[in-house]
Amino acid sequence: MLNPALISLDNQVFRCYLGWSAILVLKIFAAGIYSGLMRFLTATFANPEDLLSPKLKVKFDDPNVERVRRAHRNDLENILPFFAIGLLYVLTDPAAFLAINLFRAVGIARIVHTLVYAVVVVPQPSRAIAFFVAVAATAYMALQVIASAAF
Amino acid sequence: MLNPALISLDNQVFRCYLGWSAILVLKIFAAGIYSGLMRFLTATFANPEDLLSPKLKVKFDDPNVERVRRAHRNDLENILPFFAIGLLYVLTDPAAFLAINLFRAVGIARIVHTLVYAVVVVPQPSRAIAFFVAVAATAYMALQVIASAAF
Amino acid sequence: MLNPALISLDNQVFRCYLGWSAILVLKIFAAGIYSGLMRFLTATFANPEDLLSPKLKVKFDDPNVERVRRAHRNDLENILPFFAIGLLYVLTDPAAFLAINLFRAVGIARIVHTLVYAVVVVPQPSRAIAFFVAVAATAYMALQVIASAAF
Repeated sequence: MLNPALISLDNQVFRCYLGWSAILVLKIFAAGIYSGLMRFLTATFANPEDLLSPKLKVKFDDPNVERVRRAHRNDLENILPFFAIGLLYVLTDPAAFLAINLFRAVGIARIVHTLVYAVVVVPQPSRAIAFFVAVAATAYMALQVIASAAF
Repeated sequence: MLNPALISLDNQVFRCYLGWSAILVLKIFAAGIYSGLMRFLTATFANPEDLLSPKLKVKFDDPNVERVRRAHRNDLENILPFFAIGLLYVLTDPAAFLAINLFRAVGIARIVHTLVYAVVVVPQPSRAIAFFVAVAATAYMALQVIASAAF
Repeated sequence: MLNPALISLDNQVFRCYLGWSAILVLKIFAAGIYSGLMRFLTATFANPEDLLSPKLKVKFDDPNVERVRRAHRNDLENILPFFAIGLLYVLTDPAAFLAINLFRAVGIARIVHTLVYAVVVVPQPSRAIAFFVAVAATAYMALQVIASAAF
């Protein structure tokens, strides 16, 4: 049977998952608020009721707004699956050193991804590397969870 | 060690999280089905194989469909992180009164958000208020989780 | 009180949830990587820093890329809520036969959805059926969770 102490603040692996998950929730919200801010800075509003002045019209193609929206959507595609699989991975009782470093890899890679995509715009392959580090770490967790479920 | 009774139907905080999470899952699905319905009502189909008549063409810019899609995407950006952090917040054993009202705030704010965005279209700042109430409540939970993980 | 043995590899319902969740995380990532691949095959890049040659321009309307992106977004709308509600449903201690077949229905329906939407493009109603099977199974779980929380 699974050790109930796994879902415990005494388990440093769970604690690390807890901390990085919460940081990444705030990071996703930061991307959302940043995209709202960018809409104000560029006066790019998607809804008639959002227009600040009667002279403005709805607009969907501002490159700065769209860039932040793509970064934000990429977060949904990659961070949200991590929330689910990270918890299940903790429940498989992985080696602490490996698990902690996988969580750090996902957390740091996703923060770097947003920075190089939407804040500073660093040339490739910086964004591709940040993307693949997080995908590889999360996919490894998923494979370990499948192995636990199957045997 | 964490009290295993936290993840229990006897814990009213967990019970409240459970109920609101399930309601919000149904709310997300309602937005998805509503956007499909809006496609039929406006004959706006994004895929050639969806066209109901050979006279129709694929179309991507119907303002009613796009409005529902934006409301739906906003759900993904805000409700899905709540599912993850709400559960972790329950595990930090928060004061029941505060936690229950935070869950209610998120649940009600997100239902109001969809209503004023995609169903009735109420002037601003109604949508902005609904958005920020849910973000603030969820971000507060994330900060509490970080504090628990750190100490 | 909730039986702590529910969140255990000895519980075949949890084990089934665990396996299908991990498979669906990999499926979401596969859609993401497939959409990146499609960008290369069609030379459709959304960011100036991604352009492989100075002759290329950013492009947002390739039908093949957009099709994979819609399939991917549909995953986020439907699979991510399943991750949250599936775990909570396990905690309501459902009948094993029913629960296991609901998880299988969601898992298989969502894999079929991606195949008929973005890989082979099968005529309707194949995609609609795959969509509604997964929505119905997940919505049923949400209703059971609400019933547990309310009584």
